[in-house]
Amino acid sequence: MITDDTIVALSSGTGGAIAVIRMSGEQCAEICDRVVRSAKGRTVASSKGYTMLYGNVTEADGGVIDDAVVAIYKAPHSYTGEDMVEITVHASRYIIRRTIARLVEEGARAATAGEFTARAFLAGRMDLSQAEAVADIIASHDRATHHLASQQMRGGYSEELQKLRSRLLHLAAMLELELDFGEEDVEFADRTELVQLMEEIAAKIESLTASFALGRAIKEGVGVAIVGRPNAGKSTLLNTLLGDQRAIVSEVAGTTRDVIEEHLNIDGVDFRFIDTAGLHQSDDQLEQMGMERSRKAIEQAHIVVALIDGSTLPEENDNAPETIRELLAEIGCEEDERMIVVINKCDVAACDSQKVAAALPYPAVAISARNGEGVERLVEQIASTIDSKRIYTDAVTVSGARHYQALMRASEALSRARNGLTTASPEMTARDIREVLDCLGTITGEVTSDQILQEIFSKFCIGK
Amino acid sequence: MITDDTIVALSSGTGGAIAVIRMSGEQCAEICDRVVRSAKGRTVASSKGYTMLYGNVTEADGGVIDDAVVAIYKAPHSYTGEDMVEITVHASRYIIRRTIARLVEEGARAATAGEFTARAFLAGRMDLSQAEAVADIIASHDRATHHLASQQMRGGYSEELQKLRSRLLHLAAMLELELDFGEEDVEFADRTELVQLMEEIAAKIESLTASFALGRAIKEGVGVAIVGRPNAGKSTLLNTLLGDQRAIVSEVAGTTRDVIEEHLNIDGVDFRFIDTAGLHQSDDQLEQMGMERSRKAIEQAHIVVALIDGSTLPEENDNAPETIRELLAEIGCEEDERMIVVINKCDVAACDSQKVAAALPYPAVAISARNGEGVERLVEQIASTIDSKRIYTDAVTVSGARHYQALMRASEALSRARNGLTTASPEMTARDIREVLDCLGTITGEVTSDQILQEIFSKFCIGK
Repeated sequence: MITDDTIVALSSGTGGAIAVIRMSGEQCAEICDRVVRSAKGRTVASSKGYTMLYGNVTEADGGVIDDAVVAIYKAPHSYTGEDMVEITVHASRYIIRRTIARLVEEGARAATAGEFTARAFLAGRMDLSQAEAVADIIASHDRATHHLASQQMRGGYSEELQKLRSRLLHLAAMLELELDFGEEDVEFADRTELVQLMEEIAAKIESLTASFALGRAIKEGVGVAIVGRPNAGKSTLLNTLLGDQRAIVSEVAGTTRDVIEEHLNIDGVDFRFIDTAGLHQSDDQLEQMGMERSRKAIEQAHIVVALIDGSTLPEENDNAPETIRELLAEIGCEEDERMIVVINKCDVAACDSQKVAAALPYPAVAISARNGEGVERLVEQIASTIDSKRIYTDAVTVSGARHYQALMRASEALSRARNGLTTASPEMTARDIREVLDCLGTITGEVTSDQILQEIFSKFCIGK
Repeated sequence: MITDDTIVALSSGTGGAIAVIRMSGEQCAEICDRVVRSAKGRTVASSKGYTMLYGNVTEADGGVIDDAVVAIYKAPHSYTGEDMVEITVHASRYIIRRTIARLVEEGARAATAGEFTARAFLAGRMDLSQAEAVADIIASHDRATHHLASQQMRGGYSEELQKLRSRLLHLAAMLELELDFGEEDVEFADRTELVQLMEEIAAKIESLTASFALGRAIKEGVGVAIVGRPNAGKSTLLNTLLGDQRAIVSEVAGTTRDVIEEHLNIDGVDFRFIDTAGLHQSDDQLEQMGMERSRKAIEQAHIVVALIDGSTLPEENDNAPETIRELLAEIGCEEDERMIVVINKCDVAACDSQKVAAALPYPAVAISARNGEGVERLVEQIASTIDSKRIYTDAVTVSGARHYQALMRASEALSRARNGLTTASPEMTARDIREVLDCLGTITGEVTSDQILQEIFSKFCIGK
């Protein structure tokens, strides 16, 4: 990663009234002063940080491209830790293109995705997990994803991991020193301390990995598959569930164009409702393809709402469970912990569907999607699958798959090291501990490689 | 229009890495200081203009929504002429929503479309034609539209119109004074001076209205309809014309989704190529609908490219014109000044299509869309229909329909006044001159109404 040149990119979004072009690097002031001419003859070079300058963005021949306000940051008091400017111009495609072109003509380079944040990391302005959180912050669209990303960006677990890691690093060095003494029976690393530290780390890792299921669900949105035979009332249920939120939903429709899914925000958490094709036995090829998709949706869902048409249940309450069991089998719902059985059309059911639901051996709610009866209880039931109280505490939650994988690998190496402490060779133990150190180090970025950095920052947008 | 409160809106676009929230009004500092907490205890209220402040956007309970940089502007040195701040946060939907919500909670009001610019106009920071140009600047996507809007924003014709108008205003007052003296034969308004001034204004108006055809074509993109029988090679021609630009075209595809049109930038001017359905006699209803659309496209086009399959022309050069005439009639092309005849497939034509083209009584080019022969000449021919040299001079060009209409109305009233000067009653003349004054005044905003302002600024985006 080249960091000794000056990079430039559009940092704000498209459309809107104004656009912000960001430039960072040693030559920042020089390049900006050649392109933006202040009416009063002020320059970026001679200005203090945290001040602004008004001027004209100009073509090489002096022609005016636009008025601009330049926000000036001086190293190290900037996002990247380098000299920086943010040039605000009118949000015209032409003006943005020409302004960036002029800055490039005068010596800047077009930034790659995430390059500003990568520089901030390389300059030590943030650790790697904080840098990754920046992308999550930008993507955050509700209270829960925002809270998760904020926690991580403000330090999250990385400080704690760093402390544990540096203690382990010390003991690892002692262990390795022992190896140098070969046959001699020396013990520099205090075994009691080592075991205790390993347990501490294991406990920390366990609590972090345990939080990943929640973290991932929040980050990706909690998938709720609605499954049922055709005409069980899936669409009506969706309409009732979403109610007033429909308008908001359509605002973000662009994000869900590929899949038929609707979003419902409960306690700041995003629930993705996937309206599956009606599931029933069929020989029709097209319908079978639809059913295949439904099965996939069920597989990937966090929650499966099995919707049953209450009007098709027998009159006798006691006979209903058997019918329900058959229906569940027909629509391919297994009785796992993700399933919530919903008996719809309770207003026209022959049996007492409330009683039937209460008697079932798994979570079940009787509702009428048409008149809204019981729907509130269903929402509570769905919401209760997510520990939303936990989300908004200071407890840190792992939401990144990369972190989770690193923690899992660390955890395995740690077990090996612990188990081997009395049985395996010191070399093996030292190697396992090194692996723990490496895994923890990749989370915070103390251990890193160009490849890891590339992978992480290429997922960023350009301009960040 | 209410201007004594403090307004807030997102001013940057959607997506991107950072977002800029703009707030303007008397309570700006107060409201911002309640929402954004600086780590060093600095406040907007105690800061100077053109400085920045780093802090946290906070919930009412102190919870941190995001880091922010606040750019501070003090009246009258701001876009609106009022106290202003621009708060830069991460471009997360949640953060933007919460930040604006917090500012509104603390007393700001969500701005309506164009309200910042409307305030700038009402505060006398710019005249109305300049304010309108701001919207054009933002919409500008190529050099020509940008140049037009820039000219207008930097003063354009409004200063000149204002001077002429104020001279006329003086003479009008004199004329009206004469009316007060009724029967007495007094003459306060110098008739020679009046006639001379009227001529000056008429000349100015004429030059401005004459520029409107060009201005509108540039602003809307110059429409080029490609017309021809099926298989004449329309699509191949389009592909050849666009060549390398295709990639750029697809970038802005969102803007052209409704109509099948492709854009080609020649000398900074946007030419819109409309690929019409093949035009030929047909009874098929569906085809007839397609042809109806083609006819509309021809009607509205600035240039009509009549594409003829050269391979269907007779071997004898001298017989070709007759065949071409028949073909043109068949595809519904009238020989008007907008038409360019293009003889395609010159590489396989039996006649010498270059010679045939040169001998035609209207602009004609022989090309091979397949191998590119002659296409450059066609592009020159198309480009020459627009006086692109004129665009980039300091000559001002009217591009707004509102201005054009006002100028036309002024022109009519002016003729009436001039003709009536010797024949009509002084009352009539005074009234006609008043109308000229009104019309000119609506352009610069010296004469305005809430309705006009509403109309103009409601076309702006929110945040500008």
